[in-house]
Amino acid sequence: MKDQDIIQAEMTAVEETLTSVINSDVELLYEASQHIVSSGGKRIRPRVTLLAYLAAGGQDAMSAVNLASALEMVHTATLVHDDINDHSLLRRGKITVHARWGRTFALLAGDYLFTKVYELMAPYGDFYNVVMADACVKLVEGETLQAIAAKAGEMDRNTYKKIISRKTASLFEAAARMGAKLAGAGETLVENLAAYGHNLGLTFQIVDDILDIIGDPETMGKPVGADLAQGRGVMAAQNGGKSGSFSHDRQGTTTIIEDDPIQKMMTSLRESGAVEIARLQAIEMADRARTAIKTVPPSPAQAELANLIELVLERDQ
Amino acid sequence: MKDQDIIQAEMTAVEETLTSVINSDVELLYEASQHIVSSGGKRIRPRVTLLAYLAAGGQDAMSAVNLASALEMVHTATLVHDDINDHSLLRRGKITVHARWGRTFALLAGDYLFTKVYELMAPYGDFYNVVMADACVKLVEGETLQAIAAKAGEMDRNTYKKIISRKTASLFEAAARMGAKLAGAGETLVENLAAYGHNLGLTFQIVDDILDIIGDPETMGKPVGADLAQGRGVMAAQNGGKSGSFSHDRQGTTTIIEDDPIQKMMTSLRESGAVEIARLQAIEMADRARTAIKTVPPSPAQAELANLIELVLERDQ
Repeated sequence: MKDQDIIQAEMTAVEETLTSVINSDVELLYEASQHIVSSGGKRIRPRVTLLAYLAAGGQDAMSAVNLASALEMVHTATLVHDDINDHSLLRRGKITVHARWGRTFALLAGDYLFTKVYELMAPYGDFYNVVMADACVKLVEGETLQAIAAKAGEMDRNTYKKIISRKTASLFEAAARMGAKLAGAGETLVENLAAYGHNLGLTFQIVDDILDIIGDPETMGKPVGADLAQGRGVMAAQNGGKSGSFSHDRQGTTTIIEDDPIQKMMTSLRESGAVEIARLQAIEMADRARTAIKTVPPSPAQAELANLIELVLERDQ
Repeated sequence: MKDQDIIQAEMTAVEETLTSVINSDVELLYEASQHIVSSGGKRIRPRVTLLAYLAAGGQDAMSAVNLASALEMVHTATLVHDDINDHSLLRRGKITVHARWGRTFALLAGDYLFTKVYELMAPYGDFYNVVMADACVKLVEGETLQAIAAKAGEMDRNTYKKIISRKTASLFEAAARMGAKLAGAGETLVENLAAYGHNLGLTFQIVDDILDIIGDPETMGKPVGADLAQGRGVMAAQNGGKSGSFSHDRQGTTTIIEDDPIQKMMTSLRESGAVEIARLQAIEMADRARTAIKTVPPSPAQAELANLIELVLERDQ
């Protein structure tokens, strides 16, 4: 989210690791992996891993670089498969892997990136591999619940909560838990950081879903409504006839095509107050993350983790 | 391959593990996983794992059951993704996951099965996870090389060898290596069993590709030429104008549709002598596996592993 920070060297090492670990002699796999890995992204999961390590008292953050890289790699692998299932053409302002290399190779590239998670994680031993395996299982379950809800065209608030808890918060939680554990922290500190990670993940995903409705397509690097088109957005959960007004100064930048059901739904959502309700939920989850991080002993890393909550809450892309 | 054997109890435990580990509360994932897991299959990879463990002097084969199950689960996960990419409708005589649940859910089900590999493997510690990660990387690379060759419509013998070495032999090799290592075997014994596994895997895949051309569809549970239609068969590698005759008593059971390019290619392959050349290669790989297994101290498990080579070479499905 910003660069002049206490983990700058380690975040640079994460970038190098992400690029070097995908160096297959099968050129297509290397190129497709490089395409998605180098397309930017917020790198929030490795950041949480490294800061949790330091906040938990770790002295050598470089030892957490492969772990941090693995967390980003899981996320990257799921993006490639998500984009196949969503028929998305743009991701982070660039053409998606499946749009450029086709579905067959995108499926294989996603599988490949996932094997690289495994490769990065294996040397860390059983505790970390068990935690990561559990997070990966939950992530796929969350994605599946989302696809089921999208297909059925309905999503209630509980289902939405379950989906974002598994598909997003589980990985944020694992990032914080593993970072803290690697630092040698005791159980209470590990669990407090894990709780921070979980609630930060929930906040992040709700904000992400809000941005899908009201974000600026140019800032976002993808069309607004792209997630909603897949029945993913938080809004579907909350469009229950609640009244309320919603205004946002970016609202006018989207051209409304009257016959497009997605555009219609977006207009309806903007007018229903659903965005405001979601915003309140994001604020509540952020509060829980703040409570958790306050239990962690003060340090520059702890302050950075606290600051990350505000950045996640205020982000516009 | 047969049931009245020295690892019968452990193979039953593998079946139970495969079924119980996929028990997600996301019903669709459970059902789709159960569908493919319960559809039979030869279970040759877990068999190699368990027999290598015993042949290497292991005393408690039950301790290798989760490892053996993970080996089968990798294979199962790739089948689900393969069937998406190949548009296959039948697998082991049953409808494929993607044909029944659709592409989106098949992709997620494959991902889910892969996360279960991770879950099964994690407790074994770093040696095993490093070996498994490496095998998984190679497997995806092999699948990708195959898809590239299929798309280009050309495959030479070296490319074919590289493909089957990575997509099939790497996992067989990992099965034998990990089984032997878990038994506490020394490096020479581990590597000899690994060499056995590698060459058994090559033999297995060449025979598999031959059966795709000459097999009985009813025995095979899928149409003949299904792999060839994806440019996968060994034959494409060897259809280089070599003359020779080929006869097989099942040959007449396939109806030749003159306009179908796959059927034409199959007829051409059958008449080119390519099947006989492939058969010779399978016999050569089997010989290498025999040489490797002869270096392993005699035991009932060692004899079973030796016998497995003959079963693989003679199988008709």
